[in-house]
Amino acid sequence: MSEVFNFCAGPAMLPTPVMAKAQKEFIDWSNTGCSVMELSHRSAIYIEMAAQAEADLRDLMAIPENYKVLFCHGGGRGQFSAVPLNLLPEGKSADYIVDGSWSKAAAAEAKNFGNVNVISIREEHGDGEVSLTPSDKWPLNSDAAYVHYCPNETVDGIEINEIPDTHGVPLVADMSSTILSHEVDVTKFGLIYAGAQKNIGPSGLTIVIVREDLLGNAQKATPCIMNYKTTADNDSMYNTPPTYAWYLAGLVFQWLKEIGGVKAIAKLNQAKAELLYNAIDSSDFYQNNIESQYRSKMNITFWLKDESLNKQFLTQAEEHGLMALKGHRSVGGMRASLYNAMPIEGVQALVNFMQKFEKGNR
Amino acid sequence: MSEVFNFCAGPAMLPTPVMAKAQKEFIDWSNTGCSVMELSHRSAIYIEMAAQAEADLRDLMAIPENYKVLFCHGGGRGQFSAVPLNLLPEGKSADYIVDGSWSKAAAAEAKNFGNVNVISIREEHGDGEVSLTPSDKWPLNSDAAYVHYCPNETVDGIEINEIPDTHGVPLVADMSSTILSHEVDVTKFGLIYAGAQKNIGPSGLTIVIVREDLLGNAQKATPCIMNYKTTADNDSMYNTPPTYAWYLAGLVFQWLKEIGGVKAIAKLNQAKAELLYNAIDSSDFYQNNIESQYRSKMNITFWLKDESLNKQFLTQAEEHGLMALKGHRSVGGMRASLYNAMPIEGVQALVNFMQKFEKGNR
Repeated sequence: MSEVFNFCAGPAMLPTPVMAKAQKEFIDWSNTGCSVMELSHRSAIYIEMAAQAEADLRDLMAIPENYKVLFCHGGGRGQFSAVPLNLLPEGKSADYIVDGSWSKAAAAEAKNFGNVNVISIREEHGDGEVSLTPSDKWPLNSDAAYVHYCPNETVDGIEINEIPDTHGVPLVADMSSTILSHEVDVTKFGLIYAGAQKNIGPSGLTIVIVREDLLGNAQKATPCIMNYKTTADNDSMYNTPPTYAWYLAGLVFQWLKEIGGVKAIAKLNQAKAELLYNAIDSSDFYQNNIESQYRSKMNITFWLKDESLNKQFLTQAEEHGLMALKGHRSVGGMRASLYNAMPIEGVQALVNFMQKFEKGNR
Repeated sequence: MSEVFNFCAGPAMLPTPVMAKAQKEFIDWSNTGCSVMELSHRSAIYIEMAAQAEADLRDLMAIPENYKVLFCHGGGRGQFSAVPLNLLPEGKSADYIVDGSWSKAAAAEAKNFGNVNVISIREEHGDGEVSLTPSDKWPLNSDAAYVHYCPNETVDGIEINEIPDTHGVPLVADMSSTILSHEVDVTKFGLIYAGAQKNIGPSGLTIVIVREDLLGNAQKATPCIMNYKTTADNDSMYNTPPTYAWYLAGLVFQWLKEIGGVKAIAKLNQAKAELLYNAIDSSDFYQNNIESQYRSKMNITFWLKDESLNKQFLTQAEEHGLMALKGHRSVGGMRASLYNAMPIEGVQALVNFMQKFEKGNR
């Protein structure tokens, strides 16, 4: 098949050089005569690789010594449960900021494990424009066990750029779709988690970055694989980790370091997003209704003004090798996910197609 | 590297033809131009593959219509929590049969979620021989919510061949290291679970086979990704499943069907185990202390009579391409895991080496 650009929101495309390397060493890794997925997670050679992956991630994100990095099972939804199980003791409550589908789901799940205070920050203006309440106006509870928010809403195409000041209350962020896409000051967070299948690797792996002082207070009914302290004390090998996903994540971290790290990719991500938003804004054929400061750079949603053309748009896009542009069923329209692995050539190809399609359907 | 036989207990070797196929289509699967791991789990082509994998497993194990097959995150240890969370209501208790390390760990974890009645069935005879209490003598509680047991103990090399009669109480089996290795009458079980990394695929995937009438009674504090009903109602896609592991499991199921199914592999597994046990028993240099009817066909433990030779044995074995033979640290000695993917040539190579090593060290 000729070149394909895959705009899937996740599981998403992985960097081409990473996939080429993984394919080459698929059945004989590091001269072991075995695939890396056929090795014991307790073998010296696997442990060395796993530790290097962690070291590279620490390096990329400048993660301080007093934070643990965990390689977990279960995806982002697993963390929707694990966060309150580990951080929400009886008698306390947690603030959940809701700005879209995923933060809403996180709040709903947390209610099964403790008291949750839902703070909706989504605003719709008279002209249909979607905006958010600025973080200094969020009605936070100063006694909360933690504040949970989702800085980038994959389904809605919304992004919160500023890191909210929670006045000492631990800040917990679901960074599934934004981790490693731009620089972040980890010290502002109590906990960061991210499902791997967008900017890190294949699905089935979740990264948790947690400040050490938050460990050790899990509820009694916390499943062992969700207990952060157990996971940390066993270097994420209390149970067999998803070893192949961990290896691929390690390759992605290496690739990111080689191309200049998070600072370099952030610049590229900015350029990719501008290219597409400019194409949307400069046409009256396409539209995006999110206030510009809250627009996601990772998941760009847009609508055809004439929605009867949606099916035709998607079919022709696929014929042009532009895949998975259909918006989430709860939102409709189109969505282009521009994670780290998407080259700017892919975005340019999409813009070219959009302009061509517009011309043919005016 | 020249041919290697990998006796790792898990993550274990996968069938050579499966790995060759997976490598070939690693970056362009089914003419999509993408890796299967880069596709949405909600795309038609992925769903078709996933459904076929389930259909093949149902076919291989003759799983009746009134059982759900779930593709879950979290490994066997995840199920140590999920089983009581889903099947153990307040006011009831569950019987846990303990015959080795894994069943012991399952019982310990279950105690965090309800009342557990531990039944130890391990017996040691005067001569150091390890045996088990026959299942018709187990002191089962007729009012238990379920009976949990582990038919094959990976660490200890112990196997329970008969399916215990629990007189109507749902029987739950951790089949992580024995699933698909011989024929099993699924209708005798309420629930079967198995971490994938032994006989199914890479780590990070767990198969659950559960009778429908057991669904829907989960405890309130059950994490959503562990809720069997939620998982079943959403065809194992309530959250993003470990998509690549699911695909590889599907390839393993196809391979198993092609070589004659479970009946054929069981015959081969029997021959492999006999070959190795005969070599152990016919020598006074090696020994295995488990009563013959309880010896595992999947994980064969053995000891050198002179344990000071252990290191030398392992080093020379590796030089002969025989990897991962070291016994679990809690048991010592040696362990050869002979899962479905291990060809009989591998076992023959091990036996040849053992005889050569014995000759050189008498």
